[in-house]
Parts: sequence; structure tokens; C-alpha cells
Amino acid sequence: MKSIHLLGATGSIGEQTLDVLAKHPHEFHLKSLSYGKNTAKAIPYIEKFKPELIAVQEEKEAVKLKNKLTYRPEIVVGAPGLVTIAKSGNSSDVLVNAVMGSVGLEPTLEALKHGKDIAIANKETLVTAGHLVTELQKEKNVKLIPVDSEHSAIYQCLHGDPKEVDKLILTASGGSFRDKTRAELKGVTVQEALNHPNWSMGAKITIDSATMMNKGLEVIEAHWLFDMPYEDIDVILHKESIVHSMVEYIDGSVLAHLGTPDMRVPIQYALTQPNRLAISGAQRLKLWEVGALHFEKMDYERFKALRLAIEAGKQGGSHPTVLNAANEQAVAMFLADQIHFLDIDDFVERALHDHKGVTSPSLEEIMKIDRATRSNVESYIR
Amino acid sequence: MKSIHLLGATGSIGEQTLDVLAKHPHEFHLKSLSYGKNTAKAIPYIEKFKPELIAVQEEKEAVKLKNKLTYRPEIVVGAPGLVTIAKSGNSSDVLVNAVMGSVGLEPTLEALKHGKDIAIANKETLVTAGHLVTELQKEKNVKLIPVDSEHSAIYQCLHGDPKEVDKLILTASGGSFRDKTRAELKGVTVQEALNHPNWSMGAKITIDSATMMNKGLEVIEAHWLFDMPYEDIDVILHKESIVHSMVEYIDGSVLAHLGTPDMRVPIQYALTQPNRLAISGAQRLKLWEVGALHFEKMDYERFKALRLAIEAGKQGGSHPTVLNAANEQAVAMFLADQIHFLDIDDFVERALHDHKGVTSPSLEEIMKIDRATRSNVESYIR
Repeated sequence: MKSIHLLGATGSIGEQTLDVLAKHPHEFHLKSLSYGKNTAKAIPYIEKFKPELIAVQEEKEAVKLKNKLTYRPEIVVGAPGLVTIAKSGNSSDVLVNAVMGSVGLEPTLEALKHGKDIAIANKETLVTAGHLVTELQKEKNVKLIPVDSEHSAIYQCLHGDPKEVDKLILTASGGSFRDKTRAELKGVTVQEALNHPNWSMGAKITIDSATMMNKGLEVIEAHWLFDMPYEDIDVILHKESIVHSMVEYIDGSVLAHLGTPDMRVPIQYALTQPNRLAISGAQRLKLWEVGALHFEKMDYERFKALRLAIEAGKQGGSHPTVLNAANEQAVAMFLADQIHFLDIDDFVERALHDHKGVTSPSLEEIMKIDRATRSNVESYIR
Repeated sequence: MKSIHLLGATGSIGEQTLDVLAKHPHEFHLKSLSYGKNTAKAIPYIEKFKPELIAVQEEKEAVKLKNKLTYRPEIVVGAPGLVTIAKSGNSSDVLVNAVMGSVGLEPTLEALKHGKDIAIANKETLVTAGHLVTELQKEKNVKLIPVDSEHSAIYQCLHGDPKEVDKLILTASGGSFRDKTRAELKGVTVQEALNHPNWSMGAKITIDSATMMNKGLEVIEAHWLFDMPYEDIDVILHKESIVHSMVEYIDGSVLAHLGTPDMRVPIQYALTQPNRLAISGAQRLKLWEVGALHFEKMDYERFKALRLAIEAGKQGGSHPTVLNAANEQAVAMFLADQIHFLDIDDFVERALHDHKGVTSPSLEEIMKIDRATRSNVESYIR
């Protein structure tokens, strides 16, 4: 029986994590969870798993929750609440970090300090603080297990001596606008952008898929997760999203992970690795029904956000923090219909251009740069 | 430095093995080799590697060889010569068994008794004597490492608990006649059959590719190599031969091995596993140049030989020996223009139909049934 702590329970990854836990009641025990503001959605899960500790975003929701529950868990609030969860339980527990945004960073660091393995679905953790996280990880000798389908694919295809790995190859579906030229992207609507062809995901990540920023953030994550130089991380367009990613070895062998687009597979693997459990009701891959898998060279001009991300990754220091914060802010503005789709890339580029880099920033510096970048980007529309 | 013994040095796999050894003189030392009748082809290799022991098929060639060499190795002759090699050297050496046909069986068993790991490219070993080989392998705790690209792919994709493996998925290119219906196969010539679209291989195996018997033999090999029931071994048509085979796990994850069609990759991996070495001059897989990978459901009526092979495998006992011997004989007759292409399947089917099975045959029984089957099949044209 493995004890699990789940940050971000009502998000897309969070709910699928709960589905995995529910399917294997003898394997997993949910000790704590956090959610944001969606108390109505959280309550049935909380009543089902009865975690002893719950973190909610605001005091108001904490009160609401308390009044509706049939039992009396400890309820904590805000960012300090997430840290309380990260520190709780035993070092043999696993923390699933599925919160969105840079608020996920501090709990990751606290859980690492506490010696917990982390199933990491929060991109910001590695994108903005990869240097801090990997340093702590080595010091504490804990595992950072990817939940993203691409990184999980690579994790499952990596074996043996790291020196025998030649290249990581991330696949990218191209998102909702993959067949449009850059010129055709002018004037696309939020609704069109949210219509991802393969995966059903949250709004922010669906937009990041359409701009290809999502893949850019994944490249930065892969750099830190697998200790690979950017030069040895390739991205290839693969519109079917069946090959989730690949590892190329020095002998020319390429190992690939394939499957139907079902996030429960990488989520569950993160919790069971290196073992596997059956997933009841999961759709199996039938390649003869898929018929053909297509691959295209990545166009870094068409997908400018990917190029910006890789450049920021290579520059290192605080640049990825600026990239990520600028992107979060710009996507929020696009989703609120305040800017056009193509403004997202442009605002990120401008924020990076405006930024004077800091080498090896501390957590405080990262948070400060994150806030400053958001407010800068907000000002770009004025 | 690993010491290697190579049976079948002048065949397609043998020569590519020598190429691998030549590229890594600090990793490998060739202690012995065997070849058939092609002394002219063998001499430059022998002079290059200077093995201390050489087996040739006939006394005549032994004399010819002895007179031409600049040094004095031990030279042994015939089937007993292969056994001499299998027993020679140390148990830490590796025997590469790349001879064609059932003559490869006895040296495999002898090498296993001697405690050597075996890189196995001789299909007959597992097809006709899988029960004897795997029993010895377990008793002696030695490795049987596949050289075939399909089995090597599976070997590289297999990890963890065997109970977590749901299915092995062998890919089949379909061979030279994959786009022809069964009716269109009437009257195809030897020359057409030898024109394989993807792989450059020996004549026998190229014909076996065209009939799909090759895949059938591979299914039987996979059954023994990986201890999988026939029900859990699938075959899928994949004309590009880029995905060399796959493993499907109980969580729906599919791990696949991809690469350009270069037999040196699986040959070298068999010698270096679980480690890898670079292969200089090898062509890397560029999926964006391939563009698309296609997959089709296998048609067991169109590819009757595959169906016959799986049926013989399921029947077990001496049936696979009959399948293999009948096929070898029929293919030889086809290559000699004595029978039509479609007769190959029919002769194999007839031989299986005529056979009264023996459960768990001994080596002697296997050899006897092998000979009897060949002579039966020879008589079918009279």
C-alpha cells in the first residue's frame, strides 16, 4: 500500500489521478489533497477517499467545505497549505504535484527536502527552478517521476548507461492549429484554440499546445529531468499523438512508447514504476485501426514559441522563469479575449527581450521575477 | 574484451558479425569461426582475425584453406567440426550461431552444455528444439540472446516482471509480394521472389519473407525465447520495416524498437547487451524523412504459411520440425525452379498433414523426422 498526497485534485490531471487511485484501492491510500476554489467538485472525491488533510486556496472555501463534510479532516489554506501537505506524512509517501502554475514550485521543494518521491505534473517546477530541484533531488536521493505523457514515455524507454543515450525525441501533435500557416493564425478565436484534436486537457495547456509553447516547456523539463543538453533534445511533429516520445541510442536503436491518448497510463506508471498495473476500461492501441503514423520535421519559424522556449532554456538562469510567467500571463489575457492568438508569442518574446538575466536565481528571486514579468506583460496591452 | 566464436561466417549474418567485430577490435576477439564451402570468401576474414580454430564443411575445402593461409590454425571438418567450436574456449565466451538450417541445432545444445551464452541467428535451433534448448538454458543458467531484428527489438523492449507483459507484437514487412493477392502469386518467378523491398538477406530467408513463413518461424522462436503462449503473440503488417517489433504491457503501454534496416544493430546488441556501442557509418533513423509508418491487420488466409506455422507451434512436439524441414526442402525446390511459389505452402501443409506427431522429441528423433520430412517433400513432385 503506497500513500499518496495529491496537489491539484480538481484539475484534469488531478481527477485522472483520483480515477487511478479509485481503481486500485488495495494499492494506494490517499492521505491528503489540495484543490483551488471548486469545492462542489471536490466534495464527492473527498467523501470517497476521506483524506486526513485538505488544502484549499481560500479561507472562504475552507469554511464552505468544513460545513459540508461528513467527517473532520484537517483543513489548511493557501500557498502555506500546499507546503503543509508537502511536509506531511512519511518520506516513503509519494507527492503528486498536479497544480497549475508557479504556486506548485514551493511544495515540490519542500517535499524533496522531506525526502518524498514526487510524481511531477507541474511544469513550472522544472521550467523555472530546474537547477534548485535537481540539486535537492541529488542531495536527498529522491525520485522525480514524470507524469506528462512525453516524459513518461522517455522515462520508460531509458535504460542502461546515460552515456549510451544519443538523443531524446519529443513528439508534438501540433495542437489545434497545426495545419494553419502563421498568417492564417491571425484572428483565430479562443474557442477554435481550445479544440485540441487528440487530447482533452485544461484550457491553459490546450492553448500552450496550439502555440507549441507546451512542447517548449517540455523540452526544458526534459533537459532537467534527464540531464540532457538542449542540443540532444529533438522535437518532431507527429499528428496522431500515438508515439508519445522516443529515445535514440548511440547504436542507432530508437525505443518508443506508444499508446492511445489516455493520461491515466503515465499517471498510473508514475505511481507504480518500475512495475505496472492493468487499467480496467482503458482503450488498447490497435495500430491497424490507426493505419498510419505520420512524422514531419519541426518548423521553428512557424512554431515560434518553441524556438523562444529552447533559446530561453539554453540561456538558462532566470530566462525560463520569464518565458513561463510571460506565457502564463499572455495566455490568460488571450483566454479573456484581451489579446490575439499571435500576441502570445510576441509578448513572450518581448518579455524575454526586456529581461536582464540572473544566473542561478534563488526561490525568492524566481518568485519576484515571476511577479514582475506578469505585471510587465499585463502592461503591454496598454 | 569478449571472446567470440562464429558459426556461419560467410553468410549474410556472419559477414555482418565480422563487420561489427572489425569495428571494435578492443571490445571483441574472434577465437574461432566456421564456414561452408566458400573458402575464397572466407580467407580474407580469416587472415584479418586469425582465429585459432576453423571449421569447414568438407575435407576438400580444409585442404584448400590450409594451403593458402599464412598461419597454422586448427582446422576441423563437417558437423563434428561445428560441435568442436561449440565446446572450445571458455564458458564466458559467446557463440554466435549464424549457420543456416538444422545443422545449427547440435552446436547450440553443445555450447549451452558448455555454459556459453549464445547469440542465436539460427532459426532451427528454437523452431525444432525449443523444448530441449530452453530446458538446458534454465539448467545451465545461460543467456540465449536473439540476433533477428524482431526478437532483438522485443528483447530490448522487455523489462520488469514477465507477468506485466500482455502481448508481443511482431511486425512483418510482407516481403516481395505483399501487394499481390494469392491468385496473383501463380507463376511468380524466383527472381521476383528474391527482390525484397527492405532488407538485403540470403536467398532462403528472402523467400521465407515472401511466403511469410519467416514470420511464422519467428512466432515459434518468440514463443520459446520469451516464454509466451501463442495466443499472446500477434503479427502485424508494417511495410516500412522501421518498427522492428513491440511489447504491449498490461497498462496499455506499448514499447517499440525502431531503426533503419541494418542487421548490424541487433547483431552488435547481442554482443554488447545490456550495453551499447556506437556503430560508425550506420545510417540513423530520420522519421521525418520516412514520413509515414503504415500498419495493417494480418491476413492469415493470404499468408497461409504463417497460419501453418502458428498451428504447428500450437500443436508442438515434432510438428514445428516437420514445418521447418518441409519448408526448407520446398524452398530449395522453388529456388531450383522445380516447383511453383504457391507449392511451397501446399507442400508444407501436406507434410504436416502426413505427419504423426511425437511429443517432446529427442535430438535424434528431431534429426530423423527432419530427414524423413525432406525426403517426403522431395517425393511430392514425382
